[in-house]
Amino acid sequence: MLDVFDRCRLHDDFQPVADLGAYPYYRAVQDRLPTGEVIIDGRVLVTAGSNDYLGLSADPRLKEAACRATLRLGTGTAGSRLVNGSLSLHEELETRLAAFLGQEAAMVTSTGFLANMALGALAGPRDTVLADLLIHASLIDSVRAGGARLRRYRHNDMDHLGRLLDACDPAAAGLIVSEGMFSTTGTLCDLPGIAKLARRHGVRVVLDGAHDVGLLGAGGRGAAEHYGLESAVDLHTVAFSKCFGTTGGAVAGPEQIILYLRHHARSMVFSAALSPACTAAALAALDVIETEPERRHRALAAAARLRADLSGLGFQTGTSETPIIPVHAGDIVLCCRLWAELFHEGVFTTAMVPPSVPEGRALIRVSTTALHTDAQLDRIATAFAAAGRRLGLIP
Amino acid sequence: MLDVFDRCRLHDDFQPVADLGAYPYYRAVQDRLPTGEVIIDGRVLVTAGSNDYLGLSADPRLKEAACRATLRLGTGTAGSRLVNGSLSLHEELETRLAAFLGQEAAMVTSTGFLANMALGALAGPRDTVLADLLIHASLIDSVRAGGARLRRYRHNDMDHLGRLLDACDPAAAGLIVSEGMFSTTGTLCDLPGIAKLARRHGVRVVLDGAHDVGLLGAGGRGAAEHYGLESAVDLHTVAFSKCFGTTGGAVAGPEQIILYLRHHARSMVFSAALSPACTAAALAALDVIETEPERRHRALAAAARLRADLSGLGFQTGTSETPIIPVHAGDIVLCCRLWAELFHEGVFTTAMVPPSVPEGRALIRVSTTALHTDAQLDRIATAFAAAGRRLGLIP
Repeated sequence: MLDVFDRCRLHDDFQPVADLGAYPYYRAVQDRLPTGEVIIDGRVLVTAGSNDYLGLSADPRLKEAACRATLRLGTGTAGSRLVNGSLSLHEELETRLAAFLGQEAAMVTSTGFLANMALGALAGPRDTVLADLLIHASLIDSVRAGGARLRRYRHNDMDHLGRLLDACDPAAAGLIVSEGMFSTTGTLCDLPGIAKLARRHGVRVVLDGAHDVGLLGAGGRGAAEHYGLESAVDLHTVAFSKCFGTTGGAVAGPEQIILYLRHHARSMVFSAALSPACTAAALAALDVIETEPERRHRALAAAARLRADLSGLGFQTGTSETPIIPVHAGDIVLCCRLWAELFHEGVFTTAMVPPSVPEGRALIRVSTTALHTDAQLDRIATAFAAAGRRLGLIP
Repeated sequence: MLDVFDRCRLHDDFQPVADLGAYPYYRAVQDRLPTGEVIIDGRVLVTAGSNDYLGLSADPRLKEAACRATLRLGTGTAGSRLVNGSLSLHEELETRLAAFLGQEAAMVTSTGFLANMALGALAGPRDTVLADLLIHASLIDSVRAGGARLRRYRHNDMDHLGRLLDACDPAAAGLIVSEGMFSTTGTLCDLPGIAKLARRHGVRVVLDGAHDVGLLGAGGRGAAEHYGLESAVDLHTVAFSKCFGTTGGAVAGPEQIILYLRHHARSMVFSAALSPACTAAALAALDVIETEPERRHRALAAAARLRADLSGLGFQTGTSETPIIPVHAGDIVLCCRLWAELFHEGVFTTAMVPPSVPEGRALIRVSTTALHTDAQLDRIATAFAAAGRRLGLIP
């Protein structure tokens, strides 16, 4: 038979950028400073691509909670939640999250990816999942694993979604799946449009709040709260690796559905429980999210300031009003060169290249956090000015 | 359209056992004792169903490493390994794991489930994956997400595997996927048989070492080392939630393949990196695995002793020679009643019911760890004796 490894040997997509010294991936952080700066290759860099929007991943309160839980409960649970890995700490977090999100119940999973994978247990071969073209890989893999029919609508295009819903078999079940805030573009989903179509067609709405829960809405309950449409969300998923400053995830929804998922979601039943450290850190993060709205405000204000600076320099920065600023850079080589120039200037960003973005639309994903000082934002803008001019991207 | 939630309201599989007070799942551990005992509902129970075979999840060395890493590097990495979540600590663990497993390279994933999901990037729609009927859910979801054709062979049945291979399209690529040690039965895979067929048909072998790496083989390198067939394993996956006493996972294999997976495995690229705490704990566990073979020996000796006791009492305990002892209990209600009687006697086991096992073949999965004292093993056997007699399962 053919060798499945043969195709892997063809992997040289990044050779051209590596030859230029501009390979932007798997750069290892040696150490982190409380300011949000990191040390890579012995140099101090200001981060400008992290998902730590509230700046909690190095917060002393989370660290202390994680260490206390580790010392008391150990470094792992040695089993799935179903059989022997459940802790009272998990239940406490579930109760708190459900109350926070205004849902009846929640279940905590070992990663955000696996929270989204739980959807595979809901939508089966006879069902149709209608999903925004930009949704996260975990949601797509979930649908594929569950066997439902997947129909993608153009990003936030409600006419397109409406036409796909019109074409659905009325004797089948349907689900609309969107992210609250999209990671690459920073755009919000059109939840009002989705809610209207969902009501009209009698389908459920699953909202992935990985990037927006903790960050958006007056109370930090995400895009749903931002729109005043929390009741339109049937299932809400969360990732702890963004605003919650740790790892893990959760699914929140009606009690009966969560109970069902606790027994049928393979990513819940067949994955070891979240570690005591991460569970305790997520609980400590929820305390902060509920009591310190100023962190959300600062992350958003920092983004507004930096966006204005970058756009003033002549960069195309998209239309988002969130902490994610997509800086368009053209083709993959130019994008990686811009990433490398910024890295050289002491700014650690993220290069997004095809297939994560359309061909010719590679971008530097800049994001701000609550910890960015004005001086750091100035450093980032100054680095972009120098790098952009050297590459002829701005005048 | 139909309501996808409707089918979830039908969930009452466990009502009969709940009515008997014998619902065995999601029992929350309030606290853990260094002896391996746990506190549930205010009572101290001896655990006899954990995957913590080496007893490392509450080891002071792992706890200290986890806390040190948390204080230095934070409670999370706020990004995927690809873009901004890589730590030198991850690289150190990868280098160590690759050397330990005798592979060229390794990549660390955020859970063991997601390590196995990486296979979806290898086997595509034109390929065939031949998998043991008892392999883990994550491997099946991985194949489904990747789109390869999945062919299951009866557990360890090499004739069946051979026939499936004979029927494969020689112009397609194939992969054989097995676990090293199977979680439910405790049986080892027939790696000699798999290796022979793989060579004959020119297909690659993926071995999931979740349960056996750290535990089996003179050096703890798992079932592959046990058989002296490490070179027959093309890709080796590991879960840190068993012998490594924490959470996370890894894939080890040829450098070129790992490099490919680092860019194409969606569970790697689109999942936040393993937390500093778990990464450091896994490194500390590897130190112990490499230097304290007596832990493996103790876990195996404890199982041999307990297996003899249980079998002497008249229980059917299968044929495994590993720390997993499947105690057959018949139907789901009887199994859950046995679980509840054991729980009442102060022993915390795991009830495995359909669909995890065939209909009518429900079982109590007992497992031993390096921490089990002879007195604890006696308590477990005594509890089985009392519970089994009350239910008429043994004379």
